[in-house]
Amino acid sequence: MSSPETVVPVAPGADFLTEIHEQPSALRALLEHEGSYARVASTMRTRGATTIRMVGHGSSDNAASYGVYAFGLLPRWTALRDSITLTAYYDAGLDMTGSTVIALSQSGRTPDVIDYVMRARAAGAFTVALTNDIGSDLAGAAEDVLPLAAGPERSVAASKTYLNQIAALGLLAASAAGEGRRFGAGIRATAELLESAIPVLEEQVRPVALSFASVGRMFVVGRGIGFATARETALKLLETCRVAAEPLTATALAHGPVAALDSLFPVWTIASDDATLPAVVEAAERVRAAGATLVATGDAAEKLSGAAYTLPVPKPPVPLLSPLLSVVPGQLFASALARARGLDPDHPVGLSKVTLAR
Amino acid sequence: MSSPETVVPVAPGADFLTEIHEQPSALRALLEHEGSYARVASTMRTRGATTIRMVGHGSSDNAASYGVYAFGLLPRWTALRDSITLTAYYDAGLDMTGSTVIALSQSGRTPDVIDYVMRARAAGAFTVALTNDIGSDLAGAAEDVLPLAAGPERSVAASKTYLNQIAALGLLAASAAGEGRRFGAGIRATAELLESAIPVLEEQVRPVALSFASVGRMFVVGRGIGFATARETALKLLETCRVAAEPLTATALAHGPVAALDSLFPVWTIASDDATLPAVVEAAERVRAAGATLVATGDAAEKLSGAAYTLPVPKPPVPLLSPLLSVVPGQLFASALARARGLDPDHPVGLSKVTLAR
Repeated sequence: MSSPETVVPVAPGADFLTEIHEQPSALRALLEHEGSYARVASTMRTRGATTIRMVGHGSSDNAASYGVYAFGLLPRWTALRDSITLTAYYDAGLDMTGSTVIALSQSGRTPDVIDYVMRARAAGAFTVALTNDIGSDLAGAAEDVLPLAAGPERSVAASKTYLNQIAALGLLAASAAGEGRRFGAGIRATAELLESAIPVLEEQVRPVALSFASVGRMFVVGRGIGFATARETALKLLETCRVAAEPLTATALAHGPVAALDSLFPVWTIASDDATLPAVVEAAERVRAAGATLVATGDAAEKLSGAAYTLPVPKPPVPLLSPLLSVVPGQLFASALARARGLDPDHPVGLSKVTLAR
Repeated sequence: MSSPETVVPVAPGADFLTEIHEQPSALRALLEHEGSYARVASTMRTRGATTIRMVGHGSSDNAASYGVYAFGLLPRWTALRDSITLTAYYDAGLDMTGSTVIALSQSGRTPDVIDYVMRARAAGAFTVALTNDIGSDLAGAAEDVLPLAAGPERSVAASKTYLNQIAALGLLAASAAGEGRRFGAGIRATAELLESAIPVLEEQVRPVALSFASVGRMFVVGRGIGFATARETALKLLETCRVAAEPLTATALAHGPVAALDSLFPVWTIASDDATLPAVVEAAERVRAAGATLVATGDAAEKLSGAAYTLPVPKPPVPLLSPLLSVVPGQLFASALARARGLDPDHPVGLSKVTLAR
């Protein structure tokens, strides 16, 4: 037993890895707020605020990519990752009646997101803050607040915050479609699947990280609801491993970037068992034809032939929940690769937990 | 004088460079169709189709980034780069009454864009094809057609097609705001500025290309109306030079990717003389603090201190036309860098002019 004076040495990246493991419990904590999500969804309907404008940076903006599909497929509303610049810098003065703004910020302190929310509210939008800090400036600026409930996140590289943002956007969209309870049950079941999958994946990513220890650039390919996973995986690799990782849709890959591939340029590919699978299979064939190393992941990973590494994840109870699972191999791979490179994902050089950049 | 039988050897990348030089005349050719743009704008107004859904891949999708600002700042309409997948693959069945679809495709043959247009038209959208081939399948699928009028583009890497897409979206947005004539005159004046700037820039990019001959990765940073330029510059570098070039907004850079920078990771930064300049100046400071090499371009390039190279472009008659100028240094740099690396931008390995990928 160590005395209180003993300094326990903390391994680099210990917080990031711990928080990846905390994701199932973070999802369960979110579900304690189902009532708040139902209330906000009801206000959206009552106000006819059915154009969904999502704003955020970094992981928050990646989660918003998922929101486009969640709102499109559940209540069948148009959702967009709105331009912050147009409103906050150029003061375009768009009419925002009929819109709900969902402002995503872990800390609730992102300056231009707060500025956007104030202007959007004045322009007639129903504004909602989705944040871990319900006492933050962002929460104060918005008309309503939804708790992200991910708990304290110490690692600069986000994990459970991102997962809860995905779940929160899905839950809000499902509530707007009158399917909140069913979707909540799906999140609960997915948390169970995650609990068993994380330790298995943690072992599986280790040899991939060792073999990629000196890689300088990667593409991360996904499409549809898998694209948010591609963006978030690429961001983790950039910020924790200093890999120039670029997210691409399966089709965008063919429209130019495929020409950059060679045997030293691995491609991490997320295959989901849905209507986008043929496009992703075709993209994987292009990757192999270019001589690049293919890593296959997602719940349809085994459908991509010729992969050097396959990291399958379980199928969720409903396809729309697949991003809660498909991002985890990327998180764990980033954690293992950072360690293999002697980098600390908890404290990447040049970053702090709360980004106050303009 | 060579006889008709003589095969004149064509330098690699000759088409790409020729077409960059043809851009001023391509812009003037577009202006011969001002009447068509006024007609479509009038239909948009009459039909109340004021939510603008833009779809396209590659350079076309990059141009759509500009459309968000053109429609937001001129008629003050909401424009979005719509998800093709949501409609064409997932068959979400969104209600699209009140929407104009602008489908961007150089060839008019992109399969999922055609599929999207057919479904959007059935869902109530006013559908418009913007293409170089007004007899294409895409033109046939859409309710109306706008000629891009860039003339034949032989290089696989697009240049004049992209510039005309930017001008076309601006002209349509301006026409919708009742300012089509003024904007058309602005395009004409910008074509003049381009004519003088291209030869100067062609000389200026040469030493940058030589010093970057072995670079494997870059970031390209812009914000607001400069973000389309960042995306298109990065795509040129990827497809013609095999550089892992990633476009980032000035603020997104601070939310993670800045941690990947070091002295071997140059950052190409586009500074425009508008309200986004302070954010871009701040981003450039972060780049320098990380020890990375900074290249400054755009019409406010001289506002970024500490740049290793400065490639200024002239100020356009109205700020919204700046993307017609700010992308040219990137095109010419890609052309020179490809040559320095022994690559052929006219025929990148693995690409063809018409992309039929799903």
